[in-house]
Amino acid sequence: MTHKEINNGSVTSPLGFTAAAVAAGIKQSGRPDLVLVISDRECAAAGIFTRNRVAAAPVLVDRATLTANRSALRGVVINAGNANACTGTPGLADARAMQRATAEAVGGRPDQYLVMSTGVIGVPLPLARVQVGIATAAPLLARENGHAAARAIMTTDTRPKYMALEVELPGGRVTIGGMAKGAGMIHPDMATMLCVLTTDAAVPPDELDSLLRHAADRSFNAISIDGDTSTNDTVLLFANGASGVPVNDDEGRTRFGAALDELCHALAMMIVRDGEGVSRVVTVRVTGAASTADARRVANTIATSPLVKTAFAGGDPNWGRIMMATGRSGVDLDQHRLALWVSAPGELPLPIVRQGTPTDYREADAAAVFAQPEFTVHVDLGDGTEEATVWTTDLTHEYVTINADYRT
Amino acid sequence: MTHKEINNGSVTSPLGFTAAAVAAGIKQSGRPDLVLVISDRECAAAGIFTRNRVAAAPVLVDRATLTANRSALRGVVINAGNANACTGTPGLADARAMQRATAEAVGGRPDQYLVMSTGVIGVPLPLARVQVGIATAAPLLARENGHAAARAIMTTDTRPKYMALEVELPGGRVTIGGMAKGAGMIHPDMATMLCVLTTDAAVPPDELDSLLRHAADRSFNAISIDGDTSTNDTVLLFANGASGVPVNDDEGRTRFGAALDELCHALAMMIVRDGEGVSRVVTVRVTGAASTADARRVANTIATSPLVKTAFAGGDPNWGRIMMATGRSGVDLDQHRLALWVSAPGELPLPIVRQGTPTDYREADAAAVFAQPEFTVHVDLGDGTEEATVWTTDLTHEYVTINADYRT
Repeated sequence: MTHKEINNGSVTSPLGFTAAAVAAGIKQSGRPDLVLVISDRECAAAGIFTRNRVAAAPVLVDRATLTANRSALRGVVINAGNANACTGTPGLADARAMQRATAEAVGGRPDQYLVMSTGVIGVPLPLARVQVGIATAAPLLARENGHAAARAIMTTDTRPKYMALEVELPGGRVTIGGMAKGAGMIHPDMATMLCVLTTDAAVPPDELDSLLRHAADRSFNAISIDGDTSTNDTVLLFANGASGVPVNDDEGRTRFGAALDELCHALAMMIVRDGEGVSRVVTVRVTGAASTADARRVANTIATSPLVKTAFAGGDPNWGRIMMATGRSGVDLDQHRLALWVSAPGELPLPIVRQGTPTDYREADAAAVFAQPEFTVHVDLGDGTEEATVWTTDLTHEYVTINADYRT
Repeated sequence: MTHKEINNGSVTSPLGFTAAAVAAGIKQSGRPDLVLVISDRECAAAGIFTRNRVAAAPVLVDRATLTANRSALRGVVINAGNANACTGTPGLADARAMQRATAEAVGGRPDQYLVMSTGVIGVPLPLARVQVGIATAAPLLARENGHAAARAIMTTDTRPKYMALEVELPGGRVTIGGMAKGAGMIHPDMATMLCVLTTDAAVPPDELDSLLRHAADRSFNAISIDGDTSTNDTVLLFANGASGVPVNDDEGRTRFGAALDELCHALAMMIVRDGEGVSRVVTVRVTGAASTADARRVANTIATSPLVKTAFAGGDPNWGRIMMATGRSGVDLDQHRLALWVSAPGELPLPIVRQGTPTDYREADAAAVFAQPEFTVHVDLGDGTEEATVWTTDLTHEYVTINADYRT
């Protein structure tokens, strides 16, 4: 292993990055809700955005900004409490005003700053408060605010999510840090997922983009199910080169990529485990598919089925619902070839269905697996060699409570 | 109007049909769970079955039976409490044994009887009990058992669902009756939907099939969302001609079709209103689509979104979630052309979004609509002239309670 976790690391662990978090009065709770993450020098940047056709203003602005400038960014301004989504042309103007206010307060040009927003949809952004917040935050930028920043971007999250890794590259040591917010039940339309990643490695923009896509496909895109997501979902990666160590050969790319994959996976699992009202986290693994698309389709259908998820909530080994979800996935399959097994962490798999027919498993053994806080459901389609894995959660009373009165 | 409702009508209102319902010990509750619906003469029959690739044994047997014989059926045997799904080859043998037992008890050949099952998946059918139940039920066949039959096929339904219409055809008066069971939240993978329809009109099998498909597309297929459904979903229509009145001209087809459409729609709405834990029924109407497929896709995405459905449960006019679901439907749309309005029954529509931007509607007015037990959400895509309507429900605590411990 050429990387290791930094104790209590955060988005400001890489050299040259600072953060600030203030309460700007956007969240009704009065908690901190305005965050800056800033590099002391220009960075390369890459972004992955929601595929939702109703995309929030900050997503539209960031896409345009990164199209024009991928190599001279300075950071990101984030507000929680208001998504600036479904806000029309005024919303776009507000997102651009956030860029300008940040440039005025921190220095540089507006197009050197990206914007993230999360919170309620369809309500105009309280721009004056946001502008005051940015001006208040800028003088507070400091390395020690990485954890405060992770806390301020939370909405219905119950805990902040941050991590950093140290990576030994051929040319020396670099650091990758990150923070994320999720909540919602990691279903595409469930909640905004925001993630900011930073590194002091020197990585060209094209390389950065391809490394980020690889990592996101195995983490954020495997928990946000369909790959299409909320109006605001955004993952940003900034590389400022402050370590003086470049990622410019195969060995460096391999090591840096492995660390980035691990960091993204760890942050994604923090999001899953902190999903709204979650009491169980389930790995859905589909093998034996004719194509990766088929495998993903089956896994996503199982992972988003309310009937499957409520059975998980009850700890009920009601595997018939998993078979039913498999059958309605739209994938052309032969039910008499299906196999299903489940396993608790560190335990041998328990076969439940073979060739479409129940095995003589003992109900008590199945119940013991479904009672675990984390376990794996494995479906084999008997139709090929492709596979996919997604992570999902149960659907609980608490989820209904949180979402039935989110705004009121 | 050439048809009218028969007071307290049921599946045995048409001439020549009888029913029986007994407790065979399949339901753990000990309630009636075994039903026969029998015609005193041979019938034409049509069926619509689940598109789930994991189809239950009775579905496979019925498809094969109707392929071989569509004009000389005698009726259907139904059990509740066990779905006979995911039961492999033994399950198929059990479904065929139900056909044989019915033929022995009632008369005729096994291939003159169709089979329906609903209940828990993956548990072998208790065939001996079913056989005793069939033998016990046969001598009890009588016209007055139509309501008892509707009650015995219930699982998590809270009330029986039945209705009959009298239709004036050019050649005389005929009757169409029906019963259904649903529960589940009318989502594709949610619960078994069974429906038995009977008529004493004389209708050729091809005509019967096309009339049934037309009616189901505007009723059962608009509540079971995607058109793909649970492992057992089945709608059967028997026509025994006992009235002596044929459906054999355009006028007859039009009148009979209109009545059948209305009966199916009424039974489908009974299913929706009795969905598990349902407190609100919402009509989702999508217009301005480039194609019917687009309109259906958007409507289904809204209708199945857990975030939208929990907002409905809370009576929360959180229309941003409806916009979000619209955007993630996979339909290529321009968010700046979207319009959204809502309306309570008998009230003028309340415009909420115009050209992708909120109107200056008053929050209290929106809250008043979302507080109704039934209301309509209308999304216009601004992209064409096609449209679709689906009916959905809210997602409540009670739904989680029912489904988290269904089997235990």
